[in-house]
Amino acid sequence: MSLPEHMIKAQGTGNDFIMYADPNGEAAPTQKEIVKVCDRHFGIGADGLIRVTHPQYVDDLDEHTVEALHDAGVEWFMDYRNADGSLAEMCGNGTRATAQFLVQRGLISLGENESFKLGTRAGAKRITHLPDDAELGSQLFRVDMGKWSMGARNEYTVTIPGSQGEGKGTFVDMGNPHVVTIVEDAYSTLPVLGDLELTHAPDVTPELPNGQNVEFARIDNLDTERDLGDASMRVYERGVGETLACGTGMCATAIVLRAKTQIDHWRIHVLGGTVRVDVTDDSVMLTGPAALTAEFQLL
Amino acid sequence: MSLPEHMIKAQGTGNDFIMYADPNGEAAPTQKEIVKVCDRHFGIGADGLIRVTHPQYVDDLDEHTVEALHDAGVEWFMDYRNADGSLAEMCGNGTRATAQFLVQRGLISLGENESFKLGTRAGAKRITHLPDDAELGSQLFRVDMGKWSMGARNEYTVTIPGSQGEGKGTFVDMGNPHVVTIVEDAYSTLPVLGDLELTHAPDVTPELPNGQNVEFARIDNLDTERDLGDASMRVYERGVGETLACGTGMCATAIVLRAKTQIDHWRIHVLGGTVRVDVTDDSVMLTGPAALTAEFQLL
Repeated sequence: MSLPEHMIKAQGTGNDFIMYADPNGEAAPTQKEIVKVCDRHFGIGADGLIRVTHPQYVDDLDEHTVEALHDAGVEWFMDYRNADGSLAEMCGNGTRATAQFLVQRGLISLGENESFKLGTRAGAKRITHLPDDAELGSQLFRVDMGKWSMGARNEYTVTIPGSQGEGKGTFVDMGNPHVVTIVEDAYSTLPVLGDLELTHAPDVTPELPNGQNVEFARIDNLDTERDLGDASMRVYERGVGETLACGTGMCATAIVLRAKTQIDHWRIHVLGGTVRVDVTDDSVMLTGPAALTAEFQLL
Repeated sequence: MSLPEHMIKAQGTGNDFIMYADPNGEAAPTQKEIVKVCDRHFGIGADGLIRVTHPQYVDDLDEHTVEALHDAGVEWFMDYRNADGSLAEMCGNGTRATAQFLVQRGLISLGENESFKLGTRAGAKRITHLPDDAELGSQLFRVDMGKWSMGARNEYTVTIPGSQGEGKGTFVDMGNPHVVTIVEDAYSTLPVLGDLELTHAPDVTPELPNGQNVEFARIDNLDTERDLGDASMRVYERGVGETLACGTGMCATAIVLRAKTQIDHWRIHVLGGTVRVDVTDDSVMLTGPAALTAEFQLL
């Protein structure tokens, strides 16, 4: 297989992707191609690559999964790979970028407040096209990220190589593992959020078997009347380093903040922008902008 | 002014550039445009932007400079800006990428071993198109980087936040300031080259008034019969951080290695690849590959 001649670079909250449509299942990428095009100096550069195709063309899905996706009403599938070529189950910012790609390229028709189901390796995800918002911007999509579970609060101790002090962390399972630490509160002796040196992976004790993403959050404002909070967050992604945004990490953060404050709705401010997260006992919704940045052709 | 619809991403030893031809002087970039397109997540991403134009269209050059460049036989000028939009005098890897751009786009005709003069803010630079080389690769260009000067050997003490030990550094003026430290030798108690943690700017004592780029080099092999040495190098660029390659830094390194060993010719191995540097008492030549990566159009 090989990459198509023309591809797109897109981003959601600064999480960026190489993207292309493969409607006939003829252009599954090789690991070598992914690494090359995602290299930020020798290629175009991105956090990952998304092939937008139909479920039956995704080799690692078994027949029953394909059938279940079709039964759920899925037409398009987000075949997401990390920049190193490895498979990833889910990428919240990637689903928004994929939705914007499908709309902007005319592959689906989706009016304001209308939704569709996108296939992912973590199942069918309902995505709704929202009207522009003064705070969140335009080209807004809300993704139902599905079920979540949270461990005991403040069960973990989190330290940062190069920083003094320690914080308390709470485990959240979003399909991938997170530990969320609230800084600038009574349980933390870590530096203020802006001073954290996230050049090395934070240490989490006790250790989790498969590692984790680590989020550091600070509550900026609580509006109990509107049931709305504002928080700032930074994230160290497992195997990657500090990133501008992490979809599941922003959800995990809102879940832990809700447990602490009883507030259900959060605006999460990250290096790459702002998203909104709405939490209920059995679902979490991620809302944010996405944009196509450029069309390119490798030479 | 505004950027043209179609632009190129190019690289030389992993040092990457947004590039376009502006033959009529109609497309000088604004700082905002440069910052946007060079942003690695929200734009295409690059270390800098190169507008390839004629000297008379470069606003910050005075009449005499333009005349002198024309008198020297300069047709094309490398209008280089850093990713933050600031002006830069010279970029060795950028001159090779510009040469490859001019050749590949048919803007100049340049056979093997033929040369031309490229205008830069540091004057006219002679660039020669070399035949392919088994070690250095294809699309090779040799750039005469011009005059250099070196301070007293081992005049500076270099330490690295987060690393134990210290090394001795030698100052080299390549138009921009460098301090070169040879590690894994008798004067250094720093860790081995691969273990250096270059996440923060190294400390140089006594301080230089305008800061400096700092190179760490290790001699890998000396072939006195062929007057040829091999060295590995890492570089921390002033105001940028560790980079894959730095043209003037690789030259500065070869100059200091020559002073130590009397060997004139060096293969310098960096994270972004390998270049060759040839030093005489009053010139230094940098030879390496360059390639156009992609053509793109912002959406």
